[in-house]
Amino acid sequence: MQEVEAVTRTLASYVVNARYADVPVPVRDEALRSLVNWAGCAIGGSRHEAVNRALAAVRPFSGTPESSILGRTERIDVLNSALLNGISSHVFDFDDTHLKTIIHPAGPVASALIPLAERLPITGVELLHAFILGVEVECRIGNAVYPAHYDIGWHITGTAGVFGAAAAVGKVLGLDVQQMTWALGIAGTQSSGFREMFGTMCKSFHPGRAAQNGLLAAHLAKQNFTSSDRVLEAPRGFGFVMSADRDFSEVTKNLGEQFEISLNTYKPFACGIVIHPAIDGAIQLRNGHGLTAEMIESIKLRVAPLVLELTGKRTPRVGLEGKFSVFHSVAVAIIRGAAGESEYADDVVTDPNVIALRDRVDAHVDRGIRDDEAHVSITLKDGRVLEQHVEHALGSLERPMSNDDLERKFLRLCEGVLSAQQAQRVLANFWSADLIKDASELGRATVPV
Amino acid sequence: MQEVEAVTRTLASYVVNARYADVPVPVRDEALRSLVNWAGCAIGGSRHEAVNRALAAVRPFSGTPESSILGRTERIDVLNSALLNGISSHVFDFDDTHLKTIIHPAGPVASALIPLAERLPITGVELLHAFILGVEVECRIGNAVYPAHYDIGWHITGTAGVFGAAAAVGKVLGLDVQQMTWALGIAGTQSSGFREMFGTMCKSFHPGRAAQNGLLAAHLAKQNFTSSDRVLEAPRGFGFVMSADRDFSEVTKNLGEQFEISLNTYKPFACGIVIHPAIDGAIQLRNGHGLTAEMIESIKLRVAPLVLELTGKRTPRVGLEGKFSVFHSVAVAIIRGAAGESEYADDVVTDPNVIALRDRVDAHVDRGIRDDEAHVSITLKDGRVLEQHVEHALGSLERPMSNDDLERKFLRLCEGVLSAQQAQRVLANFWSADLIKDASELGRATVPV
Repeated sequence: MQEVEAVTRTLASYVVNARYADVPVPVRDEALRSLVNWAGCAIGGSRHEAVNRALAAVRPFSGTPESSILGRTERIDVLNSALLNGISSHVFDFDDTHLKTIIHPAGPVASALIPLAERLPITGVELLHAFILGVEVECRIGNAVYPAHYDIGWHITGTAGVFGAAAAVGKVLGLDVQQMTWALGIAGTQSSGFREMFGTMCKSFHPGRAAQNGLLAAHLAKQNFTSSDRVLEAPRGFGFVMSADRDFSEVTKNLGEQFEISLNTYKPFACGIVIHPAIDGAIQLRNGHGLTAEMIESIKLRVAPLVLELTGKRTPRVGLEGKFSVFHSVAVAIIRGAAGESEYADDVVTDPNVIALRDRVDAHVDRGIRDDEAHVSITLKDGRVLEQHVEHALGSLERPMSNDDLERKFLRLCEGVLSAQQAQRVLANFWSADLIKDASELGRATVPV
Repeated sequence: MQEVEAVTRTLASYVVNARYADVPVPVRDEALRSLVNWAGCAIGGSRHEAVNRALAAVRPFSGTPESSILGRTERIDVLNSALLNGISSHVFDFDDTHLKTIIHPAGPVASALIPLAERLPITGVELLHAFILGVEVECRIGNAVYPAHYDIGWHITGTAGVFGAAAAVGKVLGLDVQQMTWALGIAGTQSSGFREMFGTMCKSFHPGRAAQNGLLAAHLAKQNFTSSDRVLEAPRGFGFVMSADRDFSEVTKNLGEQFEISLNTYKPFACGIVIHPAIDGAIQLRNGHGLTAEMIESIKLRVAPLVLELTGKRTPRVGLEGKFSVFHSVAVAIIRGAAGESEYADDVVTDPNVIALRDRVDAHVDRGIRDDEAHVSITLKDGRVLEQHVEHALGSLERPMSNDDLERKFLRLCEGVLSAQQAQRVLANFWSADLIKDASELGRATVPV
């Protein structure tokens, strides 16, 4: 077994000693973009049945209602707010993606920090810095074990996310290096979440629980509740127990120089990122040629291997399953010109017109195709064959969502939850999170008035 | 990959449909013994610093104080009471052991049920039956993956325990088969806990968190929060993700005929079960020959392989580490004739006299020796060599603790926490748990008056 340095303590020490002044401006800007995107998703998802049911379950046990729940009028304790925000921010599968690891970074970290800010006196800068550090921690840990860890069946947003939440909250609580090391240990020993849960409410439970468990871990560590000092690198710790392979240098190299949040991306479509190139290509052909379902004989996709592995559901029965069906996604994108949340409503997934086109979609794996690439070929009833090669899907690092794109996405997600006026106000808050004196305003202002 | 039947649903269906009338009397009696032993451990551990620190951390977020914490005067919400009871019941490493899996079965299950009974109207029989079923579920799941799962580094009391807590609470909540299946799924996707944490406060955090997470899982399922129906058997579920090997027939065979709680055992010594044969042998030699430390030149142990793997700490620095040192355990047992909780106090572990004898203890692994067996050989300064072969340690299935042994252990654990009179009353309560009309009495009566 390889002999390794004090990986966990090195990471903890970095988080404790990091200074906001040393964070480059483009990194800060990307963090604001991540927060805007996260807040929109959480507000948009806040009325989902998964959130309603979770709230009903935890409310009888919840404590002092110090915190808002994004997009809702109920107030609840900080820990449960973290859980509920985490669920709502991920339930549409519309949140951000760190493409190197498929981690959705904002969920576990922001879902914990925003409600905590309603309990503590904390500035927008402190919150933003803790957010950047939390994302750094979870993504570096993800880098160290991806893809072996994910391949086994772990939902990495939950398993790595809990470390990020603990680190971010620990930073805000002012933990010392020993306490931060323990916080990572207590977080790690709660690391959990199976990919088997994809397609059920438990998928969004994972980032919610990661946020909540990380919050708890940091508060326990603050009370000197002890854990191992070597949760990442020990033979019976995270890196060896939960992954068939690991490279701990990914955790510790270039700390403070390279920021993983710079690699964050945002979804234009409300489904698994791996389907985006195919949807993108389908919409380009539809718009370029004025296509309707009736004109189409068949659709052939050539896609990366992960597409069928993750989203190969041939006959989704409900909305959540539709997100794991490349067939539904492409069909509905042709019919409606979009793949937003409403394209994954239960009654859209079971719409006979959608199903009729869905059944004419074929997908073939091509191992030479990258994850953000796809070939879409549509055969029309008149015999024509239309082809579209998507080199990099919209929302990828090479074709990022612009700030305007993010604003449009945010405002559309707020529809039906907040008034247009309030949505604009909340948007402005998050864009200027670094200028806000009292960060409690960020969560509180999302409560529908 | 092997094709498997609906393992999770079969187990859920059994739990939902099981009737107390079908539980054989000896099984009920063993369940009462398990509860008595658990309650003593939880009361005894209730003043431990790990409990104090955890309570300080969770209190600001805790909800309606509906439940007692065993052995303490504070009241707290049900979920946090489960966490704290689970910590206190395991923090002395003095609780019960299902030897086939090294699961400590009562902790995750009873720690959840006892505080829940203060919230619900529930009879002693309902509680006892749910307890039996919870233990059944966790131990069967443990049987299916042990030892491969444990060997990887998972603390099986936490990882399997969460299923037991969910099943027990789900039974009390009256979940239907679908909901019970979801409860197991929500529990499983929280399954966690590294063996790396042994020797730190996180070890006892595991059963506490298992109790709390299982409780939460059952309440979420009651609200129809969905999960996979196949958490145990799916390729990306518990059996494949968290173990290198598994036999699902262990989960489903002879359900309702064979009860795992019948295989429960109780510790006479306040440390890891694998050291018990060596301690037992050392105490037998001490008492048989009136030995003192000064008479002893050296002690040689021949032990099972697990002993040095789990408890090979040569130089423990604090009490918790002492429990993972066969060297300290044998030395202190010779000096004090016991290995109760007080023999693992910090100042005993660092006592120069104990250390002096500890340094004269050697242990050698013999692959031919069973886990509950040991050879102890003591060379005296006068040249004599004393030998003791322990075939089955006290507390093993072959040499079980008697009810009187359990009572003595219980009362000693209550010393300093409850008055002798109150301890007797609590003991009587737990012995007659099946006769109690209002099960809330079980937890409430442990509050020091």
